[in-house]
Amino acid sequence: MLERYGHGGDVWTAEEKFGRGREQFLDFSSNMNPFGPPDAVEEVLRSGWKNIVRYPDPAVRELRGKIAAKYGVPAESVLVGNGAAELIDLIVRVLQPEVTALARPSFSEYEDAVLKTGGRIHGIPLRAEHCFRLQKADAEEALKRSDLLFLGQPNNPTGRLIPQELLNDLAGSGHPLILDEAFLDFVPDEKNVTLLRLAAESRHVAVIRSMTKFYAIPGARLGFIVAHPDVIGRMSRLQVPWSVNYFAQLIGCAVLEDEAFHAKIISWLQEESPWLAAGLAGLGLEVTPSDTNYLLCALPEQSPINVRILQEEMGRRGVLIRDASLFEGLGTRYFRTAVKLRSDNERMLAALSDVLKAAQAGEISLERGGR
Amino acid sequence: MLERYGHGGDVWTAEEKFGRGREQFLDFSSNMNPFGPPDAVEEVLRSGWKNIVRYPDPAVRELRGKIAAKYGVPAESVLVGNGAAELIDLIVRVLQPEVTALARPSFSEYEDAVLKTGGRIHGIPLRAEHCFRLQKADAEEALKRSDLLFLGQPNNPTGRLIPQELLNDLAGSGHPLILDEAFLDFVPDEKNVTLLRLAAESRHVAVIRSMTKFYAIPGARLGFIVAHPDVIGRMSRLQVPWSVNYFAQLIGCAVLEDEAFHAKIISWLQEESPWLAAGLAGLGLEVTPSDTNYLLCALPEQSPINVRILQEEMGRRGVLIRDASLFEGLGTRYFRTAVKLRSDNERMLAALSDVLKAAQAGEISLERGGR
Repeated sequence: MLERYGHGGDVWTAEEKFGRGREQFLDFSSNMNPFGPPDAVEEVLRSGWKNIVRYPDPAVRELRGKIAAKYGVPAESVLVGNGAAELIDLIVRVLQPEVTALARPSFSEYEDAVLKTGGRIHGIPLRAEHCFRLQKADAEEALKRSDLLFLGQPNNPTGRLIPQELLNDLAGSGHPLILDEAFLDFVPDEKNVTLLRLAAESRHVAVIRSMTKFYAIPGARLGFIVAHPDVIGRMSRLQVPWSVNYFAQLIGCAVLEDEAFHAKIISWLQEESPWLAAGLAGLGLEVTPSDTNYLLCALPEQSPINVRILQEEMGRRGVLIRDASLFEGLGTRYFRTAVKLRSDNERMLAALSDVLKAAQAGEISLERGGR
Repeated sequence: MLERYGHGGDVWTAEEKFGRGREQFLDFSSNMNPFGPPDAVEEVLRSGWKNIVRYPDPAVRELRGKIAAKYGVPAESVLVGNGAAELIDLIVRVLQPEVTALARPSFSEYEDAVLKTGGRIHGIPLRAEHCFRLQKADAEEALKRSDLLFLGQPNNPTGRLIPQELLNDLAGSGHPLILDEAFLDFVPDEKNVTLLRLAAESRHVAVIRSMTKFYAIPGARLGFIVAHPDVIGRMSRLQVPWSVNYFAQLIGCAVLEDEAFHAKIISWLQEESPWLAAGLAGLGLEVTPSDTNYLLCALPEQSPINVRILQEEMGRRGVLIRDASLFEGLGTRYFRTAVKLRSDNERMLAALSDVLKAAQAGEISLERGGR
């Protein structure tokens, strides 16, 4: 499998597995904005490379200030991290929940962080018949059975937002709640949906943001969390010094205010996501409606192949998709794909069509696949 | 004080404190190689900036392979970290020592990591009358009183190596031992002194290396540890995914084999360190002989000012030095200074001379300083 290290986007493993150079894959297995980063990023690295001789600001003062200004929260409620991954790890180590409720399926780092601290999991089922949206009864059960809710908003790999009324209930319940808004920048209604401002004041709500997906800068590692200053202080004491490298800090400052970039991405996704979803459905796949820049799909029930074989056959054709059966709660028919630019989406659809036809013709099967 | 966040090299705090742009300081408070990074670093960032759209290799395969080849250790004994700081944190969290013995003075991250896990400290005194070299009797006492020794090799801020015979005794004692060889690249006899190869096989010795000092790349964050594969495995499970950013990995690969760069730095330091030490002694300062690229100095006992005042007065003159009285075990007369290029060293000596004369003339005093 491509997810040897638990995630998509691992072109090194793809290179080893499929024997072609890592630059030659179309990578639909991670969910970057396909336009690449804002122009300012080139400037920071090409002209500013000499800054490498300086230690990063240990307190990340400038970037924290810009985040605070953009989202209307106090700087002392903001902690910047070496990717959202570091913040997921730190917040769980600070809160030390006994039982954490998280959605099945959801991003595996929540569970990993909880298990590392010796905590237990209460799984909240998301069901295909509800198009994978969180249900009120399941959420209320989770409130009773856990001392922390850790939810993706929107959730990964389903791409679904929490229904607004339910979100309001959860946020107002007084129950500790962490929202991972890693993909919320892609949601047109972001400003009305985000709980960043609430998190800055609340003692029980924290919100994590990744900057790597929307700004297409995963190589730099950058995320932040907004929470009550007491929680931020406790996280900060556990954080390794100079955790956020110099370039990540400069890039964060440079991209945050690029409104034109933001508008371009939102506008592209509004058009491209329905187009790709229709194309996938046209191939006979089950496509979950998505609120963000990736789509959860399933092979038909009667498919002669499973998603492991599908991923391999796609990989041989130079296209990487995410095996979503590795997310607890999803069966062997599920995969996740990013939404990319039209020409790439077309190539992905063509490869999919090719694999599905070969499967139908009996040229690939559960037995013969996976060579 | 400049060390608001516990370390030197914080030009942001210097800017706030002394009201001049952060680019305008001569920073002797952190210990970078003053030539800047090897040429390959410019190429990685200027030409390779577009790699920012890729996730870093989660398993750091290429760089681990190069480190393994260079130092003659198996790749499964190598873990790469987001700076040595992350590895100090991880190894202590894995070993969970009850009592850790560390030198007074030594790098504060060792103690911070131990205290974070709830461990206690046994302080090993280093004494001015022994030129701050570790003494056999004190080391033997530490073996009895601790379940882990965590030592700098050479030690920071004293710049002293552990005497070779004593090091052999400690490494052969079977007592858990972590050596921080962050500044060992600057030692001409590095190859005979390092315990990297021993650490790869031993169940009780681990060695941490920073790549940021010698290669002048602290902005990128890069370090590695060599230890028994079982220990590496346990650290790796605690490490945050994609902890080492893409550029740090590429840069690590690019600089490791630059032998000419290595020779240049060793040759420069052999000449410059004694020259600077003589200059400092000529101003009446007590200078500890150093095995590496920084010098521990003390104001004379009868000095009318302490090092806090000295640091402030130097900062006003645009020169940053490290207040070493903040290291436990050193009094208020001690500071640490990097060795830099001749012209910068001359400017630093001139500023020092100026401050010391003003102090002698009564223009600066304990009462009147620290404005």
